[in-house]
Amino acid sequence: MSQNKGDVIKELETVFRDRLFTEPHILALYSHDASSEVGVKPMAVVQPVSVDEVVRVVKLAIDYGFKIVPVGSSTSLSGNATPKLENTVIVSLERMNSIIEVSDIDWYARVQPGIKVDELNLELMGYGLQWPVDPASSKTATVGGVISNGGGGMRGAKYGPASHWVLGLEAVIGTGDVIRVGCRTVKCREGYNLVQVFIGSEGTLGIVTEATLRLTPLPESFVGVMARFGNAESLVDAVIRVRRDKLWPMVTEFIDDITAQILNLEPGYYLWIGVDTYTGSEQQILSKLSADISSSGGEIISKASTWQEFSKILEPRRMLYSATLKAAFNDYGTDVFVAFEDVAVPMSKLPEAVREIQSLGKKYNVKMNLGGHIGDGNLHPSVWARRSDRDEMDRVLRFFEDVGKLAIRLSGTVSAEHGIGTQKRGLLREAISSRNGGNSDMVIGLMKGIKRIFDPHGIFNPGKIFD
Amino acid sequence: MSQNKGDVIKELETVFRDRLFTEPHILALYSHDASSEVGVKPMAVVQPVSVDEVVRVVKLAIDYGFKIVPVGSSTSLSGNATPKLENTVIVSLERMNSIIEVSDIDWYARVQPGIKVDELNLELMGYGLQWPVDPASSKTATVGGVISNGGGGMRGAKYGPASHWVLGLEAVIGTGDVIRVGCRTVKCREGYNLVQVFIGSEGTLGIVTEATLRLTPLPESFVGVMARFGNAESLVDAVIRVRRDKLWPMVTEFIDDITAQILNLEPGYYLWIGVDTYTGSEQQILSKLSADISSSGGEIISKASTWQEFSKILEPRRMLYSATLKAAFNDYGTDVFVAFEDVAVPMSKLPEAVREIQSLGKKYNVKMNLGGHIGDGNLHPSVWARRSDRDEMDRVLRFFEDVGKLAIRLSGTVSAEHGIGTQKRGLLREAISSRNGGNSDMVIGLMKGIKRIFDPHGIFNPGKIFD
Repeated sequence: MSQNKGDVIKELETVFRDRLFTEPHILALYSHDASSEVGVKPMAVVQPVSVDEVVRVVKLAIDYGFKIVPVGSSTSLSGNATPKLENTVIVSLERMNSIIEVSDIDWYARVQPGIKVDELNLELMGYGLQWPVDPASSKTATVGGVISNGGGGMRGAKYGPASHWVLGLEAVIGTGDVIRVGCRTVKCREGYNLVQVFIGSEGTLGIVTEATLRLTPLPESFVGVMARFGNAESLVDAVIRVRRDKLWPMVTEFIDDITAQILNLEPGYYLWIGVDTYTGSEQQILSKLSADISSSGGEIISKASTWQEFSKILEPRRMLYSATLKAAFNDYGTDVFVAFEDVAVPMSKLPEAVREIQSLGKKYNVKMNLGGHIGDGNLHPSVWARRSDRDEMDRVLRFFEDVGKLAIRLSGTVSAEHGIGTQKRGLLREAISSRNGGNSDMVIGLMKGIKRIFDPHGIFNPGKIFD
Repeated sequence: MSQNKGDVIKELETVFRDRLFTEPHILALYSHDASSEVGVKPMAVVQPVSVDEVVRVVKLAIDYGFKIVPVGSSTSLSGNATPKLENTVIVSLERMNSIIEVSDIDWYARVQPGIKVDELNLELMGYGLQWPVDPASSKTATVGGVISNGGGGMRGAKYGPASHWVLGLEAVIGTGDVIRVGCRTVKCREGYNLVQVFIGSEGTLGIVTEATLRLTPLPESFVGVMARFGNAESLVDAVIRVRRDKLWPMVTEFIDDITAQILNLEPGYYLWIGVDTYTGSEQQILSKLSADISSSGGEIISKASTWQEFSKILEPRRMLYSATLKAAFNDYGTDVFVAFEDVAVPMSKLPEAVREIQSLGKKYNVKMNLGGHIGDGNLHPSVWARRSDRDEMDRVLRFFEDVGKLAIRLSGTVSAEHGIGTQKRGLLREAISSRNGGNSDMVIGLMKGIKRIFDPHGIFNPGKIFD
């Protein structure tokens, strides 16, 4: 800070008035995200309502040398939205939450970043359309946050992650300039793909102030099942059978027996498969799903014939995060530390991955549960410990690291959709090293080069992705 | 060139032996691509067979100061693969054309860049899978070329462009280093998305030496129709009706009456719509398509019930490029210049776009035809002139520019899938300016910054995308 904090606050007050917050209890709220990462209290929180206000706070950051952490709803599970330096101003996009335009023929929507994913999809439902990027936290997560974190979610196995569903962006970069990149059409070849550079950059390159989203119709018809299995192996076997049948489900999700217990479900491993289709094909799809599930030793316990119905029976899966928190708080109260893993492996490696994760849990004797987007090989084992118990904390962290290393060994990734944040910086280096002859500096160096282009003063979200 | 050409050739000979070419007639072959862009004869052509050989030629380029234009089959239509400087070595990837691995459970394939798209898809058909990036030139176009040009093609309206179907890349960058980026899973969040930076970079950032491609099942069932219309307006109307019905076809293609005439089809405008589906739904989909087409005044003249059958009836559409060439050569022999436009507009703007393009054709009194991927708003008007006729050339170039400007005015893009190459550099600036308050320098500057990171010595494909 070349100037003192008082000057900064005064300047921010001029711009943001009653949308500037410096009260300790509010700063505390913005000092962490949904991960267990320990943050620091920022010096202020501002809530811009326009791109001009975003430009003004970025220009102040350049002049005064403070840092900016842009946040949506802070549902990040890797520490992406946790401030790490005291001279941080949180730029919360929560008030820039409008839908600017929905085009039901063009299948795009222009939105501000603070709109929540479910709110957007509720509006789109009226047009028979969807934005199919669907993190389990969709009730709370904002579109801007999903874009910045390159979110994936429940419909990713078929529809792909956020990067497939963003056509264009407006963003304020670290020079204080506003850029508008991308198009309103699915095909867009205007030089290097700066839209994609932004997607998943975790708020380190700038602040997204508007997004043009690609939309697609809600399925005309739907075949959904919820099934129970006696063990993880048979559940994975069913998923692979469905894949061999060349069914391409929109949703393939699961939770383990521990999560089921927390949620007061009958004992077992639960699988949800939802296939989007056109009217007329439902019966034969259901027959295939039924055959695959029963051949693997599972039992269908619930069916759905519309996406809306399926969303209801899928509700327990959406509660994986809250079930984990419930168990963790139940065990350790506020002295709890929870680590949310997020690896993905190629589908053929799922049996080994699930077996090894469970055996790592036993090896380190950690409290854990398991669930995730099994249809794209994306597993979310969560582990928790008493924060003040150094031995247990050590075991939990070693489990976390070892699951990442397992994913690398199985040709998978250490981060499928949560991003790197602060928690995966070491694993990111290991993953890159493993593919680049033991060297991560070259590839990380290219990323740092990109960072310098967009954020030459090092304003945005310092300490994330790489050190 | 800090050293003389003889030294370079000697060095290349040591590495490439009989895969080095300096004979004038071979250099002439590699002096242009499928566009009418005028190139220069390169000093040599090399055909590496390994990533190590690619590294060696890049290191020689650094040492001797020559330029590299990487090429696949040179089917580019914007001048992307046309060498513009004499001190160029063409690095042709045509011999690196193997399929390394197909995983039928994981739905990925690892391939070398020189494999042709159709060859790959023929192999994948045996697994019931496809790589759905499908330029009309798929018989000739290489996977590496499609990636470097960010290709789109016939299945783009539903499946999206190349950027949705590449999971990971190996590439040699301008420092001579090999990088391996991306994953084997659909979800992959390992820092900034360097895979996407490469896709569509038109060979200006490095040479792709291996790609991990995302695959998807071939449709279990298919409903395809070929229909004829009396005019463009009713054809567009049918396309929009299908969209309002929330059908999401895998293929929606068209050609105009002039192309039909060149291909000896009955007079009319032709539309192909192909919907991928599961068995059982065919009848109702066909009913909807039939109703939409007849309500718009069209007539179904052919039907297909498998993707393979549909591919056959789609053949005339794939001949748009050769039909254009045929007409152009017929008119002017080898003194011909052909410009292949490639704009896209939001679907709701299609009626206006088609009308305006046809009226621009009349205004400038140019020989033209029209076709394209109408399901994603991607139009390919082509125009041709006698190269030695300055007035006609001028009219053709003004048409080309005006169509780009029309796309900008209709919130579309000046390049949907052919890329910028040399021919769209001015229009790229205009498109970017139009969205950025009249300024293109800021966004182009960011792109140039990225160029400097990957290609600090300015070796790769100079003069393309931006000057």
